Amino acid sequence: MTRTLDALNAFPAPDFVAALGGVFEHAPWVAEAAAARRPFGRVEDLFAAMREAVAEAPEARRLGLLTNHPELAGRAAREGRIAPDSIAEQASAGLDRLSEVEYARFAALNEAYRARFGFPFILCIKRHGRASLLRNFARRLEADRADERRTAEAEVLRIAAIRLNALVVGEGPLGTNGRISTHVLDIAAGRPAAGVAVDLAECVSETETVVVARTRTNADGRTDDPLIGGRPVPIAAYELRFRLGDHYRAAGLDLPDPPFLDIVTLRFGVADPEGHYHVPLVATPWSYQTYRGS
Amino acid sequence: MTRTLDALNAFPAPDFVAALGGVFEHAPWVAEAAAARRPFGRVEDLFAAMREAVAEAPEARRLGLLTNHPELAGRAAREGRIAPDSIAEQASAGLDRLSEVEYARFAALNEAYRARFGFPFILCIKRHGRASLLRNFARRLEADRADERRTAEAEVLRIAAIRLNALVVGEGPLGTNGRISTHVLDIAAGRPAAGVAVDLAECVSETETVVVARTRTNADGRTDDPLIGGRPVPIAAYELRFRLGDHYRAAGLDLPDPPFLDIVTLRFGVADPEGHYHVPLVATPWSYQTYRGS
Amino acid sequence: MTRTLDALNAFPAPDFVAALGGVFEHAPWVAEAAAARRPFGRVEDLFAAMREAVAEAPEARRLGLLTNHPELAGRAAREGRIAPDSIAEQASAGLDRLSEVEYARFAALNEAYRARFGFPFILCIKRHGRASLLRNFARRLEADRADERRTAEAEVLRIAAIRLNALVVGEGPLGTNGRISTHVLDIAAGRPAAGVAVDLAECVSETETVVVARTRTNADGRTDDPLIGGRPVPIAAYELRFRLGDHYRAAGLDLPDPPFLDIVTLRFGVADPEGHYHVPLVATPWSYQTYRGS
Amino acid sequence: MTRTLDALNAFPAPDFVAALGGVFEHAPWVAEAAAARRPFGRVEDLFAAMREAVAEAPEARRLGLLTNHPELAGRAAREGRIAPDSIAEQASAGLDRLSEVEYARFAALNEAYRARFGFPFILCIKRHGRASLLRNFARRLEADRADERRTAEAEVLRIAAIRLNALVVGEGPLGTNGRISTHVLDIAAGRPAAGVAVDLAECVSETETVVVARTRTNADGRTDDPLIGGRPVPIAAYELRFRLGDHYRAAGLDLPDPPFLDIVTLRFGVADPEGHYHVPLVATPWSYQTYRGS
Repeated sequence: MTRTLDALNAFPAPDFVAALGGVFEHAPWVAEAAAARRPFGRVEDLFAAMREAVAEAPEARRLGLLTNHPELAGRAAREGRIAPDSIAEQASAGLDRLSEVEYARFAALNEAYRARFGFPFILCIKRHGRASLLRNFARRLEADRADERRTAEAEVLRIAAIRLNALVVGEGPLGTNGRISTHVLDIAAGRPAAGVAVDLAECVSETETVVVARTRTNADGRTDDPLIGGRPVPIAAYELRFRLGDHYRAAGLDLPDPPFLDIVTLRFGVADPEGHYHVPLVATPWSYQTYRGS
Repeated sequence: MTRTLDALNAFPAPDFVAALGGVFEHAPWVAEAAAARRPFGRVEDLFAAMREAVAEAPEARRLGLLTNHPELAGRAAREGRIAPDSIAEQASAGLDRLSEVEYARFAALNEAYRARFGFPFILCIKRHGRASLLRNFARRLEADRADERRTAEAEVLRIAAIRLNALVVGEGPLGTNGRISTHVLDIAAGRPAAGVAVDLAECVSETETVVVARTRTNADGRTDDPLIGGRPVPIAAYELRFRLGDHYRAAGLDLPDPPFLDIVTLRFGVADPEGHYHVPLVATPWSYQTYRGS
Repeated sequence: MTRTLDALNAFPAPDFVAALGGVFEHAPWVAEAAAARRPFGRVEDLFAAMREAVAEAPEARRLGLLTNHPELAGRAAREGRIAPDSIAEQASAGLDRLSEVEYARFAALNEAYRARFGFPFILCIKRHGRASLLRNFARRLEADRADERRTAEAEVLRIAAIRLNALVVGEGPLGTNGRISTHVLDIAAGRPAAGVAVDLAECVSETETVVVARTRTNADGRTDDPLIGGRPVPIAAYELRFRLGDHYRAAGLDLPDPPFLDIVTLRFGVADPEGHYHVPLVATPWSYQTYRGS
Repeated sequence: MTRTLDALNAFPAPDFVAALGGVFEHAPWVAEAAAARRPFGRVEDLFAAMREAVAEAPEARRLGLLTNHPELAGRAAREGRIAPDSIAEQASAGLDRLSEVEYARFAALNEAYRARFGFPFILCIKRHGRASLLRNFARRLEADRADERRTAEAEVLRIAAIRLNALVVGEGPLGTNGRISTHVLDIAAGRPAAGVAVDLAECVSETETVVVARTRTNADGRTDDPLIGGRPVPIAAYELRFRLGDHYRAAGLDLPDPPFLDIVTLRFGVADPEGHYHVPLVATPWSYQTYRGS
């Protein structure tokens, strides 16, 4: 349930903690500390207070933030014994639909990680596609203990920021959202290409892609909504697919069979989940182009 | 074995027929008629003489040109009982490597076609990818008898032209060759992109692609040889794949992980097997473009 | 002075006429007729009422709308004996700064036109650059009398629409505004090009250009305001000039001397004064591109 | 008069010196020294022998190579008292057509230079446009004496290389030639744009351009000959001008009036006189693009 910052400022402390206690997993004490520092003029200030509460907490509590985190695709997640936000986050990365082989792989990685570092592997999975998640897991298993502790704490803060942003509306929201958008221009006709069917697919592995958005361009050649928006864009390779041949045939052009261009596919990588990836298609029946726009 | 036109002009008639008797399948009489019209100044003239011999032949012989042709992927082909040129042509389209299901499909199409028209389905398969071959087969099964007779005779002439071109060297070669070429320009650096790994794949079906050429760009950003050349370009959809991310990493650029552009894929259709498809890649680490060039 | 449509609806009729009497030159009767049809929900409805008043007026009054119009660059204009709106309109086209030779040319054209049609040459000059104005004048001198009468009346309505739009604020404004905008993208760096100096010049003749806007791109690579906006874009050829070489030098790039690209000039024509001309520059130090965007 | 390297190898020494004595201005001793080192397998080897003869010459002779050089646009040039090659070279830069004011400017620069360095200002003017020549002159007036001596000697060698290349044909020609070429592609139609009128102009100053080549594209969208070729490309800014609007109107397209694109002008700088500047135009009626190609 989303509240305004003003309402939260006015809440009795227990209600405030009830509302925001889940921002840090199994650690309502962070919200309690923040409650005492009210009022906040901006969501950023509220989050800064939470971050300070963490920074000033005794070691046992700070370590608890890590040890209390559920494993990714772990037994607890599988059996539904994790916080609702965690369930949703893990599902968003498809971790609730793994094959037995994949579960086994995660189990082995989780065990190796916990054996080495003494806490579970923590990653803000809303910021990662499947391939990126596995790349990160393998890389961090090799990390130095002190570095990895810092990395894990930073991930806890990233998870908390996204959760907080979803719970509170107010000035100064946290910059946790990225965006993928497109724009189709027909430079043979000198106008936006309207009605072009567009798919966005995430490349979840070398060989597998999953369509994550399906839409058509509007009269301005854009899509009514961003293809991904209002959330981080998972680090991954993506494919934008445009039915350009259909578009030109529908416009009455006499194309060869097969046409020179039919389904145009733009493949691009997202490395910055909070970035805006504007990936336009500038086309004629005989040419096309893309670039990172703005 | 390739001969010069001059040598063929000087051959005794039986040697001339021995050399060119296979240009029209099981029909040495075409070469015999052409032998009597020597000498020829240009390969085109020799082919015109053969075409006229066909045009002036009595109906039985003309129909024989069709009925004597082997079926595509038929029992005779499978058992090696067809002319060597036909064996090679069918192999070039992969018809010697069909699954049992595919053989069965061809058998059914061949039977339906022969029942309707009285002669086997004839297509110059060097000019068609697998998908185009099957599209043609299905479409021509629906054709009017008189139209289809003309279509079949035209295909016999196309097959003969390619065979003749391969056997004779001289002025005025027949225009049976097409070409796919590319050129990679790095417009961030203002120079050709050298050493870029490039694959050309044919899309043999909706879901399957087969790499037909693998090379690297030279110092001028081109490939030393065309990706397809010296023969017709089979009607098909193709993919050019460029390892652009590797190229920029090798050049020492600091790219994000994953890079915005990694393997760039240009998909385009070829409808004119004798055409020149120049498909350049004009790129930076953040943009790319293609067009039908020249 | 700008009024709201609501205020105008509530005015006593004489005040309404005082406010809008100048929309049609020397013809307050049009406003009087519209006053009687109040109230209006939209500015478009108010204008439709004025247009109908004109359409239903007796011939003498309609002809008066034409004959009462001031000549372009005529003696009355020169001596300040025309309506204030006309003074401003003629100044916007530079007609108040003509040389003696140019005045003489206009005088001759005006005389020829009046002799042929019996009323002065009327053109909505806010919609035309100097070259277009003269082209129009020459072309219309050749027109058929009946056609030309219709053309002149249509121009009176265009002038009135722009004047009305400037006087009234409300729902349903008249679509009299066009726009020129730009956007500079650095596709070598994969981001907007900020701080690029941009000039927009109008080509007033074959050899003469006049800078009409001078600005810099902002952090998004756009200009804070359109280069032309909130008014019709005069029909003309324009040049956008970008100091791209300075931009890249300021960014620390080591360019040749002279650089391959220094001042990049995009020349384009505007034929639709109410259109949106988005003319981006997509550039690297070694390439650039533009297209009609949206 | 051009000779083959083989012929020069076989000449009696006096004939060899007669043929190549003018390669270094007023210094036949360089050719004499080279004559003694014959035969040469490549033009490069002949030039290397001349360069060594200079390097090994006593100081007085080396200084004489500089002091004997004619001034640019100097009195001797004006009165025809310089070597024929120098006359042609100075004319190629327009130095024979200066106004009195310009002559006076050169006279002042020449005097200041000679006073400072003791020899005339020497520049290989075939490698410089007017603006570059003046920029160089001003910059070198500020140079350190020892540096400037080296610069002047290097320019003498550049002048000699171009002269030698023009006199001798053989293997291993000197790399003194650059090139400007273009290619017009119509990516709305997917084919080369044939018959497009193209001008190449050199920007001789901030405000003045001079057309140096005028041609049309051929069936392949290229020009039959490079716009500049077979000589160094003078360091300068250039403009390529394409009559794109005429081209599309001639093709029957219904363009607005004025068209969005009419005369397209690409302005680019040449900093490397021996480089190949391929500057294509990739266009539709609503877009265009250029890049440094190859």
